[in-house]
Amino acid sequence: MIGRLNHVGIATPSIEDSVRVYRDMLGATAIGEPFDLPEQGVRVCFVDVPNTQIELIEPLGETSTLHGFFEKNPRGGQHHLCFEVPDILVARDEMIAKGARILGSGAPRIGAHGTPILFLHPREMGALLIELMETPKEAH
Amino acid sequence: MIGRLNHVGIATPSIEDSVRVYRDMLGATAIGEPFDLPEQGVRVCFVDVPNTQIELIEPLGETSTLHGFFEKNPRGGQHHLCFEVPDILVARDEMIAKGARILGSGAPRIGAHGTPILFLHPREMGALLIELMETPKEAH
Repeated sequence: MIGRLNHVGIATPSIEDSVRVYRDMLGATAIGEPFDLPEQGVRVCFVDVPNTQIELIEPLGETSTLHGFFEKNPRGGQHHLCFEVPDILVARDEMIAKGARILGSGAPRIGAHGTPILFLHPREMGALLIELMETPKEAH
Repeated sequence: MIGRLNHVGIATPSIEDSVRVYRDMLGATAIGEPFDLPEQGVRVCFVDVPNTQIELIEPLGETSTLHGFFEKNPRGGQHHLCFEVPDILVARDEMIAKGARILGSGAPRIGAHGTPILFLHPREMGALLIELMETPKEAH
């Protein structure tokens, strides 16, 4: 079912500091402009590498779901993996049938790439937060 | 400097349990045979997705460097990101010049793909454990 790894989500207390790591230390050259996703309580910045993306996410607002992560990991760290699927509703129903749990209402939301996404509860996923994203139609 | 994301390293208390997640729940179809890397204190299994790999790692032996990770994360979780570089010694010297620290002796070791690797200390890397791997010569 899962297709390509769309991105690795990295939680950071400061996108600016993390951009310095990827740009100045690791030499990444394709770094987007940060933007807000208020409905998800995050500020986002994508760092492109040749075959995938790093998604830097910073808490946005007092109710950001990231605050719980930072209580355990004050310096940030790896937060989630996002895999592409051809059809988000088919994927959702298949995952539920296999015993996975969808975070939130179960209805897909529009993610940072403008296509529907959902998150699977880490408990059934080997302690990993997994995001499923419907493959962007014009990508790749 | 960094090239493609060669793999995402996932620490798991049981490769068999994690394989069930990726194969039976997420539908991954290209899953290698697990093998031991005793000099690194890990048992390893690669799960291929179209554009990269998931490296499942399980502690091997009493002195595995993974035990510290499991003290903090008993159920496992995201452990490291591995980026390819054209030349591991050039990359090492460039990273040191920029203020990064190399774990261990600083001498590259041979990694799970048979090419030289090294790990960068998370403190300078935005709290992420970063592996650099010399690009396999016949890959891609």
